[in-house]
Order: sequence, then structure tokens, then C-alpha cells
Amino acid sequence: MRDLFHEELESITADHLKMATLIRDAIDSATKAILNADLQLAERVIADDLKIDEIQHALDERTISLMARQQPVASDLRRLVSSLRISADLERMGDLAHHIAKLARMRFPNKAVPTELETIIAEMGSAATRIVEKMAVVVEFNDVSRALEVDKDDDEMDDLQRKLIGTLLSDDWNNSVEVAVDMAFASRYYERFSDHAVSIAQRVYYTETGEFAPKA
Amino acid sequence: MRDLFHEELESITADHLKMATLIRDAIDSATKAILNADLQLAERVIADDLKIDEIQHALDERTISLMARQQPVASDLRRLVSSLRISADLERMGDLAHHIAKLARMRFPNKAVPTELETIIAEMGSAATRIVEKMAVVVEFNDVSRALEVDKDDDEMDDLQRKLIGTLLSDDWNNSVEVAVDMAFASRYYERFSDHAVSIAQRVYYTETGEFAPKA
Repeated sequence: MRDLFHEELESITADHLKMATLIRDAIDSATKAILNADLQLAERVIADDLKIDEIQHALDERTISLMARQQPVASDLRRLVSSLRISADLERMGDLAHHIAKLARMRFPNKAVPTELETIIAEMGSAATRIVEKMAVVVEFNDVSRALEVDKDDDEMDDLQRKLIGTLLSDDWNNSVEVAVDMAFASRYYERFSDHAVSIAQRVYYTETGEFAPKA
Repeated sequence: MRDLFHEELESITADHLKMATLIRDAIDSATKAILNADLQLAERVIADDLKIDEIQHALDERTISLMARQQPVASDLRRLVSSLRISADLERMGDLAHHIAKLARMRFPNKAVPTELETIIAEMGSAATRIVEKMAVVVEFNDVSRALEVDKDDDEMDDLQRKLIGTLLSDDWNNSVEVAVDMAFASRYYERFSDHAVSIAQRVYYTETGEFAPKA
């Protein structure tokens, strides 16, 4: 029974990694879509979000059924509870990539991102991609030291958001309020995306060590 | 054993209601703080958010320990999993009230809300208060028909947000970009607050009926 249990745990992790791969593609494509006003790419991100939701739904059902059948205690139970929370965070990351793609679609055929913010949006996109990739390594290998790095990468994302908002509010800003509001929301989506990756890394840290991750 | 189990379930619900009361006060006070540039009130909301987090933390520990001790199956297990998710949504609602209070604090001694948006922010605040109150009734009495009403109230919140964003983007808007960005974020916090209440109501609906709530 125990072996079957650990096999099932591994298959849960495999599904988390499948979600992480889809989310990585989603945030990467959403960033390209919003930078280049690429409607087709935006539509694909929006459609693919359903796949992420479906994996989460099926995975949660399997996790709960595993709880019911195996009646795990102590650390195994905590691991399953943590799995449910990780899949909820992953699902939300997919939503946030989807929100960015929707901004691209909403402004098409115009570009949602004004020239002077292209670099910083590209940087937020790269940071998000890097964070989700690192988070996937944390999930795959229960890598506690890498978990702490995700927190540092998130600080970088927060700095990028502050810089973007600073640009919107500077005297040099000569775009419309609409563009400012769009970009404020976009920066918020990237920042929340990154927060959820941190939350996942922290759960892995806690499950592995029994302690809360120290603040970076 | 079963009786003890149901007593513990009731005590979990009692904690959810305690959180809901704190959140109701938080969103109500945050709205007053942002409308009146009331720093003291804003500080109180920010400090009280820790209480909500503490209740959630202790409650989740108790819920997981109940899972481990009682080894519930089928509907009882689903109820406990649902409890963990409800407390996560409640905790996030507390965060969102806290974000609104922080906007009030950040702009103090100025008012964060410009005169022409006072009415709509007040309406979003009232809607949020009404929604959290209704959600509390759903949680307390497992009230399935009331759960559907929460979804309708959320549509109203979405309309208010669209109206607010419309005002920011209209030709009549003559406030700064900073005010527009602040108000866009505030509206997003109210809208997300309401989404989490819907999510809680839908979980109760699902737990009670075994079916997903129909879209309002």
C-alpha cells in the first residue's frame, strides 16, 4: 500500500510539472502577445487556460480520493494538503497569464504596451518565466535552497513593478490614462503571478523542513 | 467519535464566521478610511489583518489534525478540504481590505478618492459589505439558495468596476494619472474581494448539493 501511495504522490508531482510547463508557455506567449499585439497568440493563451483548469480539476479529485483511500497521517497527509494548495496556486498563475493575454486582445490591433514600457514589460515577462521555471525545479526535486531563490527573484519582480508604476506617474508620461491603467493592471498580473510561485516554493520548503522559509 | 467530529466541524464553521466578521469590519473600515483619508482607521485595518491571518493559521492546523485523527471519508473529507479552501479565500479577502487601507495610508493626508469617484467607491464598499454578510449566512446555514444570490451580487460589483474604469477613461477625467492608477487598483481589490466571496459560496453549494452552482 505504501508503495502505491508514493507512486501516486509522484504522479501528482508529474501533474504539477505538466501544469508548470503549460503556465511557463502561457506567460511567455502572453508577454509576446502583449508586446507585439499578436492576436493569434493571445487567443491561444486564453484557450489553453482551460487545459490548465482541467488538469487542476482532475488532479484535485485524484488527490482527495487518495486521501480517502489511503488515510495518510502526519507528513503524508500534510503533503497531500500541500499538493491541493500548490495546484490552486498553479491554476491562479494560469489565470494571470490569461489576463495579460486578454489585455493584448482587448487593445488589438493597437499595441497595449507603449514604446517606453516595452523593455520593462519584456523584463517582467522574462522574470516571470524564470520564476516559474525555478519553481518547477523546486517542485520536482523538493529543492529547498532553490525555494529560497524564488523569493529573491520575486523581490526583483517587485522592483520592476515599482519602476513601471514610477514611469506611469513621472512627468514625462505622455500617454493616455487608458494606457496607464492597462499597464498598471499588467504589472499587477506579473507581480501576483510571481507571488503565487513564491507561495508554492514556500510550501515545498515547509513540507520538507517543517519550518517556514526565512524572508529573503 | 462521530459526534465529536461534528462538534469539531461546527467549531471550524464558528472560526470561519469569526473571520467573516473581522473581514466585514475590515472592508467597511477600509472603505471609510479611503473615502475620508482616515489614517487611524487605515492603520487599524492594516494591524487587524494579522488577526485574520492568525485565525486562519490555527484553524488550518486544527483542520489537518482533525483529518489525521478522524480519517474521514467521502462527504466528511470533502467538507474538511472545502473548509481549508474557504479559510484560504477568507484570508485573501482580509488581504484585499488591507490593500485598500494601505492606499488610504499611502496618500494621507490627501484623500486617495477624488470627489467624482466618492459615490462609486462608497457603492463598491457597500456592495462588498453586503456580499461578505450574505456569504457568512451561506457558510453558517449551508444556505444553497443564498449562495446563488452572492453570484448575482458579484455581477453588480463587476458593473460598478466597469463604471469606475469608464469614468477614469472618459474625456471628462481631469485628475492625475496617479489618481487613476490608485482608483483602478482600488476597484480591482473590491472586485477580487467579491470574487473570493463567490468562490466560498460556490464551495458551500458544491459541498451541499454535489453539483456546481449554475452561473447567475
